[in-house]
Amino acid sequence: MITKPTLILDKKKCKENISIMFSKAKKHHLEFRPHFKTHQSLEVGLWFQEVGVTKITVSSVSMAAYFATQWNDITIAFPTNILEIEPINALAKNITLNLCIENEESISFLSAHLKSKVNILLKMDVGYHRTGINPSNTILLNTILGIIETNPLLHFIGFLGHAGHTYKCRTHQAIKEEHSKSLTIMAKLKEIYINKYPNLIISLGDTPSCSVADNFSGVDEIRPGNFVFYDLTQNLIGSNSIAQIAVALACPIVAIHKERSEIIVYGGGVHFSKDRIEDKEGLVFGRVVEKEKNGWGDLIPNTYVKSLSQEHGTIAVPKNDIDSYKIGDYLMVLPVHSCMAGNTMKSYTTLDGEVISRL
Amino acid sequence: MITKPTLILDKKKCKENISIMFSKAKKHHLEFRPHFKTHQSLEVGLWFQEVGVTKITVSSVSMAAYFATQWNDITIAFPTNILEIEPINALAKNITLNLCIENEESISFLSAHLKSKVNILLKMDVGYHRTGINPSNTILLNTILGIIETNPLLHFIGFLGHAGHTYKCRTHQAIKEEHSKSLTIMAKLKEIYINKYPNLIISLGDTPSCSVADNFSGVDEIRPGNFVFYDLTQNLIGSNSIAQIAVALACPIVAIHKERSEIIVYGGGVHFSKDRIEDKEGLVFGRVVEKEKNGWGDLIPNTYVKSLSQEHGTIAVPKNDIDSYKIGDYLMVLPVHSCMAGNTMKSYTTLDGEVISRL
Repeated sequence: MITKPTLILDKKKCKENISIMFSKAKKHHLEFRPHFKTHQSLEVGLWFQEVGVTKITVSSVSMAAYFATQWNDITIAFPTNILEIEPINALAKNITLNLCIENEESISFLSAHLKSKVNILLKMDVGYHRTGINPSNTILLNTILGIIETNPLLHFIGFLGHAGHTYKCRTHQAIKEEHSKSLTIMAKLKEIYINKYPNLIISLGDTPSCSVADNFSGVDEIRPGNFVFYDLTQNLIGSNSIAQIAVALACPIVAIHKERSEIIVYGGGVHFSKDRIEDKEGLVFGRVVEKEKNGWGDLIPNTYVKSLSQEHGTIAVPKNDIDSYKIGDYLMVLPVHSCMAGNTMKSYTTLDGEVISRL
Repeated sequence: MITKPTLILDKKKCKENISIMFSKAKKHHLEFRPHFKTHQSLEVGLWFQEVGVTKITVSSVSMAAYFATQWNDITIAFPTNILEIEPINALAKNITLNLCIENEESISFLSAHLKSKVNILLKMDVGYHRTGINPSNTILLNTILGIIETNPLLHFIGFLGHAGHTYKCRTHQAIKEEHSKSLTIMAKLKEIYINKYPNLIISLGDTPSCSVADNFSGVDEIRPGNFVFYDLTQNLIGSNSIAQIAVALACPIVAIHKERSEIIVYGGGVHFSKDRIEDKEGLVFGRVVEKEKNGWGDLIPNTYVKSLSQEHGTIAVPKNDIDSYKIGDYLMVLPVHSCMAGNTMKSYTTLDGEVISRL
């Protein structure tokens, strides 16, 4: 029974999302190494193991440590934080640990302080311009590879990119064009280095490209994460239908202001996070869906979270609908960013009432 | 030693903030009932007890339950969520519980289901237009008061307002003008109802007004919360100096992109939250301060968090400064919204390395 903000997980939708992406990877002969930063749950991880996934991606050393009890091949898709050398050494002793490097300082530090073998992926900037080596900077690439070669604990395994700029796309065509640029960048790198490193892999990963693209030429591995739940942001980008979104926040109605046609729910920034999208209505922090006997259905038109404070959510409701809501009921709200809502809520409740814990 | 994002609390600054607000309340003969939603820590609560505070405010039933082990007079400054009647009854049995009511449905429900006495505050809309009763709606006011009078477990104690719209102010003058409007609204209510309810109180609470205003005529109680830490938002509003901000997020440097004059830190939306301010540079998600031997000092000019993803923070740095940073060092960053950063970080570390837990 819902008494306060509760992040509801539709296990069936979630497992379908996993199954669709798993099949797509298989069809394109890609290693499927899902990013677990979205769900951060050992139990959800088991649903990936059920379909045959054996390797995962995370975005911090802490997350790798959490999952290392169930997974023994983990990529940390984040520039190596050398301040965490101790937990890195602890992990490297026990599992296959793949680290991302994008500068000389980090690889030199690892070379000096590592106690067990790790695999190294060179993080390449495929156009997002957040992190990564400029692909034309062969001097830096060769410097890093040179350091790797001097130390048998360091093993270069390939190039990793994240096309985070696809999040700015709003059509399938635009996503495919950005993805295609990533393919070209990675193909060139492969061409240059494949003779010296015949087993090197190309790893790409954003959910929009992995959801929409149908050409993965030259790619060996994909690492999407958000697809496990999807959300309104991915829907706006074009990655998923509303029906595929697997999490919704149940929020009690605590006040109704008919004169403003607004509902106040218990459900604020500490539940949704403050992520927002800009859509036809202006800023949107969530959208309300129809409650159904076993879950939720379609969007209720023009009914959305227009602002959030710490514990309050303000819901805009069409004037004609406002009388259909009552205090003491609750709304089901699709989140703008499921990774962040999961992070603030810290657990999931399935439609059967089972509570699923997470990091 | 900093190895990953850590929310550092300067205990001295925090205690000074508490002491200043306590003295201000005393000077104006106001009951000081601080809002604990910002720090949400039993231990920080003790620092309030040290100066003589005995009553507190929270924003959820869960928070009230957490603090009820150390405090026995708690106001929940949030529209009563009737779905939580069970924990409300459990609290009301053990402590003085003050609930906010702004509609007939909730008070009728309480009247039918309460098992112990509670105090009722009528939540008034003083101009923020988020929650609260329109002060001119005397029909609704009298309806609610009528229901309260029929049940000896319900005890009306006064009117509560929250001028959240002062957060849009950018000058002391503007804050004082909004605050003055709240005073006028509350004075009128007091005039109407004081004869029937001679002990009724007027409770106001936003941090900007409590920090800046010098006229509290007719007010009996203040409930500021954010002032315990302050932050960049409050500084932009004019509530506090940069030197008064008592929390900073320590973030390891993991990448430096000289060509863009940007630093990438381990410290993202899951640490800062995604709150932002619009300042002279555009969107700002945090500002970097000088590290000092025992804490931090002034802002480093033009050095700020320009964007956040889940674990990454992108710091804009002046071109002339970029060479002074190095990978493996860490930055100290003042948060835009300390309430939200506390909520995502879940603990504080003092300058002496003591870890302070929270809800």
